[in-house]
Amino acid sequence: MPSTLVTHLAALHIPVITSALDMQPFLIDWRKRYQGNALAVVQPRTLEQVRQVVQACHARNVAIVPQGGNTGLVGGSVPVAGDTSIVLSLRKLSAVRALDQQNLTITVEAGCTLSQVQDAAAGAGLLFPLSLASEGSCTIGGNLSSNAGGVQVLRYGNARELCLGIEAVMPDGTALHALRGLRKDNTGYALKDLLIGAEGTLGVITAAVMKLFPRPRTQIVAFVALESVEAAVSLLGLAQKRLDSSLTGFELIAQICLDLVSKHFKEASPLPAGSAYYVLLECSDSQEEAVARERFQQVLEEAMELELIQNAAVSASVAQNKAMWRQRELISEAQAAEGTNIKHDISLPVSAIAGFVRANSARLEQAFPGMRLVNFGHLGDGNLHYNVSPPLGMSDSDFLAHQASINKIVYDDVVALSGSISAEHGLGQLKCQEIEHYKSAAELGVMRQIKNALDPKGIMNPGKVLTPR
Amino acid sequence: MPSTLVTHLAALHIPVITSALDMQPFLIDWRKRYQGNALAVVQPRTLEQVRQVVQACHARNVAIVPQGGNTGLVGGSVPVAGDTSIVLSLRKLSAVRALDQQNLTITVEAGCTLSQVQDAAAGAGLLFPLSLASEGSCTIGGNLSSNAGGVQVLRYGNARELCLGIEAVMPDGTALHALRGLRKDNTGYALKDLLIGAEGTLGVITAAVMKLFPRPRTQIVAFVALESVEAAVSLLGLAQKRLDSSLTGFELIAQICLDLVSKHFKEASPLPAGSAYYVLLECSDSQEEAVARERFQQVLEEAMELELIQNAAVSASVAQNKAMWRQRELISEAQAAEGTNIKHDISLPVSAIAGFVRANSARLEQAFPGMRLVNFGHLGDGNLHYNVSPPLGMSDSDFLAHQASINKIVYDDVVALSGSISAEHGLGQLKCQEIEHYKSAAELGVMRQIKNALDPKGIMNPGKVLTPR
Repeated sequence: MPSTLVTHLAALHIPVITSALDMQPFLIDWRKRYQGNALAVVQPRTLEQVRQVVQACHARNVAIVPQGGNTGLVGGSVPVAGDTSIVLSLRKLSAVRALDQQNLTITVEAGCTLSQVQDAAAGAGLLFPLSLASEGSCTIGGNLSSNAGGVQVLRYGNARELCLGIEAVMPDGTALHALRGLRKDNTGYALKDLLIGAEGTLGVITAAVMKLFPRPRTQIVAFVALESVEAAVSLLGLAQKRLDSSLTGFELIAQICLDLVSKHFKEASPLPAGSAYYVLLECSDSQEEAVARERFQQVLEEAMELELIQNAAVSASVAQNKAMWRQRELISEAQAAEGTNIKHDISLPVSAIAGFVRANSARLEQAFPGMRLVNFGHLGDGNLHYNVSPPLGMSDSDFLAHQASINKIVYDDVVALSGSISAEHGLGQLKCQEIEHYKSAAELGVMRQIKNALDPKGIMNPGKVLTPR
Repeated sequence: MPSTLVTHLAALHIPVITSALDMQPFLIDWRKRYQGNALAVVQPRTLEQVRQVVQACHARNVAIVPQGGNTGLVGGSVPVAGDTSIVLSLRKLSAVRALDQQNLTITVEAGCTLSQVQDAAAGAGLLFPLSLASEGSCTIGGNLSSNAGGVQVLRYGNARELCLGIEAVMPDGTALHALRGLRKDNTGYALKDLLIGAEGTLGVITAAVMKLFPRPRTQIVAFVALESVEAAVSLLGLAQKRLDSSLTGFELIAQICLDLVSKHFKEASPLPAGSAYYVLLECSDSQEEAVARERFQQVLEEAMELELIQNAAVSASVAQNKAMWRQRELISEAQAAEGTNIKHDISLPVSAIAGFVRANSARLEQAFPGMRLVNFGHLGDGNLHYNVSPPLGMSDSDFLAHQASINKIVYDDVVALSGSISAEHGLGQLKCQEIEHYKSAAELGVMRQIKNALDPKGIMNPGKVLTPR
């Protein structure tokens, strides 16, 4: 009985939105690809209120769509169209509960924005390394539920590796108190790791203990030009060997990406055009700048001698660091300004990437002559944003009609090389059908056994990750 | 029908041991605390044979005890006494299937010993950092099933963080092919992380893709004397700030540990006796030795100026590195030579450790005057091996009669401070009753839901991790 649910929650003094106008921002994703419906948007302020909401929905068989900053790219945080669920917004759970300097941990509620967590760490002279384009509005709960990646994974790992403990509410309304800030704890199954990356389909994360790190004393960025992805992969190996964990960023950028940034943002590239690929390297060091700089320069000189790189620019200031990163960060927006494109957030073993790009781009070109491959990404993690833009002159709708066949060309090759069709964005609504084809029946079967065991009523974020059976 | 199982497996050409004498080494743990029975010890050579064994046992409701090197400390790899199960030894699955230089990964079968994996990495000029006392005989499958820790966790993480993909056989005999060597893969639930650390109760890991790292160019070890655990915790903070991820070891050692090593092994400590505690620090660096050494020396000088340390010895050679590590590594054996002791493999937030040791050792002393606290461990990970030896002159049996009350004094305080009663050894048979008391009903409940979903017949390693309901 939906109306009794709303009445029940209101009686518990839990903020509930039911007007269509006020609910609207919670019902559509930010790329405006997915529009859903909901009985209500519920905004609990405490763990206990979250528990009450889930328990009430569980008793009434009402589906729950957990939502943080609603910045996801796969439609995971908005209701599936036609569904009659509630949106459970975690944004009002936004306290930093504790920061432990000696243990290097911060305990935060799910609704804290990522930049709020970064700022709290910085305020204590420490680093919270997770960093994403949407950090001003995405939330740590969403970061965990989607196991967010970003630009520092090479050194610090994904959101899952950054999390030591969680507090969560399970689908039947049970609160799971596991906010332990321990680096070692072998007392049973990895429930934390299971809920992380489950996109809200196994429960609602309400708080987490995250790792902090010493702030690097020095950061230096370089922009280098290369003739091929092969050369970039060789450079990665050299930089990892020489810099080890001081290598905190290694971003591949095809020439077309810089052309688009230049066209739409009038920002000049740090290097002249003319190379096929560029790499942004970031070195973070706990040593003084002169030592760190000499070490970094030596790597670049060695790469030049080995003819891995054609040209290089090294930043001389924090402002120049930022300007170089800005080239990388503006690519997505420049692509959006250029028009539609078909995104592929893929990962591959690093050793397979160069061959994949060569063979697959040829297949794409053969099938769609003139298509523009906007290829960039976190090469250090084996993760490419391998996006396809239409040939110049083709209409968006004509191009999008080919989406399924373009995806098939890309994903077939990715999976044949033991890669992933979703490196960091998750499955959500966008890829939950596609994964049925690309993941083994055994893995999907075990996932369904777990889903059915923890959420037998199927009320947690239905239509995401797994298609209903 | 047990006999038909053995006949069936023999017909499939799967090696089976049934003689009591030949089975004996597989039925008792190496500390000789747990002695079980079995219908047979089965030694498959391939994934397909493992699958056949599990399927045959599943069909016949015969329990399976997976076993690697049988070096565990909690009785997890031998059958529970009185049970009629089979031991499934993975030791004959011992191939290194692949080593990928560019992807920095190695694909190994479960029965590879840890040192075999380390050696294969070293042979390619790379590092596999997992390192344990039992590395010559423990297997990677056992390391994963128990989420092994060890001395390099501070820098490289536990076994779970070192593993990118697994191959496994589920309790119903389904093979799970997920040997992906990807740093980013958000396509569903973290099945790998769930099977890791499950101690064989959710399935059998048959192979894994593990991360490799560049070998450090330089390693330097220091041995320092301190007046308290507080000082050691402060030194840890300083070393982390100055050395960041170059700090690869930080081991706390109480004076009594060195006394026992000296007494039973005639090995002289690197520093004169007289301090309450010692710390072994290890610095691993990709820079040349002179640079790394200067940096490391500066940290020790700063600690001296801050009066955190009373004395320091820095190694000047690889031989001296090893001699210093040997002091740490011999503690367990020296303790065993001294007589019985009650072990506690605990972890705490680093910020809580000094207070815990002070208050808890006072409680122990009050309850058992003269008890000897042999306190040492991986302080950098918040992990102590907090072992209690009897007062001089008390018989082992008199002392062991107090085991339950000593455990209670320790574990009550650990759990009150949000610590763990098993940091790296797991639960096995030893702590599966105790955890019922110390873990929340909610966490145990979710663990049981998962166990029942994946292994409804309860055939996978019964009597470990979770007690039967």
